[in-house]
Amino acid sequence: MRFYTISVNNTEMTAVLGPSGEPVTLESLGVKVRDMNDLIRRYDEVKDRIVRGLEKDCVPVTEPYRILAPVPVPEQDLVCLGVNYREHILETSNGIQFDKKNDTVYFSKRANRCNDPDGVIPFYDFVDSLDYEVELGVIIGRDAFGVSAEEALDYVFGYTIINDVSARNIQRKHGQWYLGKSLDGYTPMGPCIVTKDEIGDIHRLQISCHVNGEERQNSSTGMMITPVEEAIAELSEGMTLKAGTIIATGTPGGVGMGTNPPRYLKPGDTVCCEISGIGKLTNTLEKK
Amino acid sequence: MRFYTISVNNTEMTAVLGPSGEPVTLESLGVKVRDMNDLIRRYDEVKDRIVRGLEKDCVPVTEPYRILAPVPVPEQDLVCLGVNYREHILETSNGIQFDKKNDTVYFSKRANRCNDPDGVIPFYDFVDSLDYEVELGVIIGRDAFGVSAEEALDYVFGYTIINDVSARNIQRKHGQWYLGKSLDGYTPMGPCIVTKDEIGDIHRLQISCHVNGEERQNSSTGMMITPVEEAIAELSEGMTLKAGTIIATGTPGGVGMGTNPPRYLKPGDTVCCEISGIGKLTNTLEKK
Repeated sequence: MRFYTISVNNTEMTAVLGPSGEPVTLESLGVKVRDMNDLIRRYDEVKDRIVRGLEKDCVPVTEPYRILAPVPVPEQDLVCLGVNYREHILETSNGIQFDKKNDTVYFSKRANRCNDPDGVIPFYDFVDSLDYEVELGVIIGRDAFGVSAEEALDYVFGYTIINDVSARNIQRKHGQWYLGKSLDGYTPMGPCIVTKDEIGDIHRLQISCHVNGEERQNSSTGMMITPVEEAIAELSEGMTLKAGTIIATGTPGGVGMGTNPPRYLKPGDTVCCEISGIGKLTNTLEKK
Repeated sequence: MRFYTISVNNTEMTAVLGPSGEPVTLESLGVKVRDMNDLIRRYDEVKDRIVRGLEKDCVPVTEPYRILAPVPVPEQDLVCLGVNYREHILETSNGIQFDKKNDTVYFSKRANRCNDPDGVIPFYDFVDSLDYEVELGVIIGRDAFGVSAEEALDYVFGYTIINDVSARNIQRKHGQWYLGKSLDGYTPMGPCIVTKDEIGDIHRLQISCHVNGEERQNSSTGMMITPVEEAIAELSEGMTLKAGTIIATGTPGGVGMGTNPPRYLKPGDTVCCEISGIGKLTNTLEKK
């Protein structure tokens, strides 16, 4: 299934893609959830009712609606993997120092509110090197602690697209990457969460990013150095990944800082992040 | 005022220190809050009722109670300052690489549940270099965006003590510091939140840490390189610090990795973190 958070008459509603190709609110199926986080936690309990509801005469939303980030307000910061695609390591090694050994880089990113799939990315005047990073987002479905790689996907609810927007000058200035990636509006997400049963092999998805129509990133999730299963196992060894945790699994080569001279984003640019089987995000930059 | 979260008959309650020196539940004063996060958000609205309640015949808790972390479940990861005390820079420079320039290091630390002021710190078998870091914790009281250093303290609710427990081998292994500081049980906090009006000058507090009674850290919050006001201003320039945000402001010299050979924590050790005017945390390590 494909779950959305949509805004109808300024009210946020959780919805599922119906057979007609339009979203059907869970409420209209008699399934009451507070929001996407609530759905994720209660999915085992309500899943059958949603499936049965979609098989009957379900009525898609008829009023105008806007698709928002599927998890508008994450309950914790996003957990991120750094330099996790083979080609991305080479291009970034001159930009930011990191150990070349094979250990996965984990950091986090605050998203006070995730940006919508068509939202405006603010261009702050103290940022002189704004960059894009298309990433596969993993949504954890139940609390995971001490989980092995073999059983890791049992703990996944589904997948989404994240643009890990990064202010390179702020990221460098403060030694650790956190703040330069956590500015308001820097986490476009969506357009939906595709449940894991529907996505197939998560390491065979095409992942790409275009800026103003020009291809900048184009790879396969199979190029990840640490695959999703291993990341969940390693992260959960001592840190519980609570249901609702969002993991951004790193970006392929082709980011703006990867070329010489770098090609950073400017006000007016449009960034389009796409992953096969999930959809795309199209965000425009505007001076804040 | 001094606010506590206490457990009475396995129920978590928000309380305030009464005139008798014992906690008084806010409920007994007719002030209904869901938890400490709710109190922080609604403080302006309920403050007068609490003050008046304490002036009347308030009844302290008579049943046995345990003091928990004041914010048991933070709504977002903690924002942390790294190497923010003058003496701590020298001792850590051989251990972990960072730029020696004067920019503040910001990172984050997940606390799925903060550890109690007398809680057990788990000693995981994959950690071979467990360290302590006593820190002044700042609790933001209202949403802060684009706040100047001059007005920064207007956005503070109060202060607490945090032990930023750190697994140095995990912190080093993954390039960024996040995971090695985010393991379950690694964030002892408390014993209370002292509101800002009661603490006086926050840069004149004595801050210390003892391991098994032996002094390891002993400094003043006046030794911070980036003071609290400047950190709030810098962080909030592009990232909203929501009410309830917890900022850990860095640790003085004397951590275990700072000596040669390093003196890391072992199972059975007791770590006591103390800040004048706030109180102390006393946590023992146990093999997990």
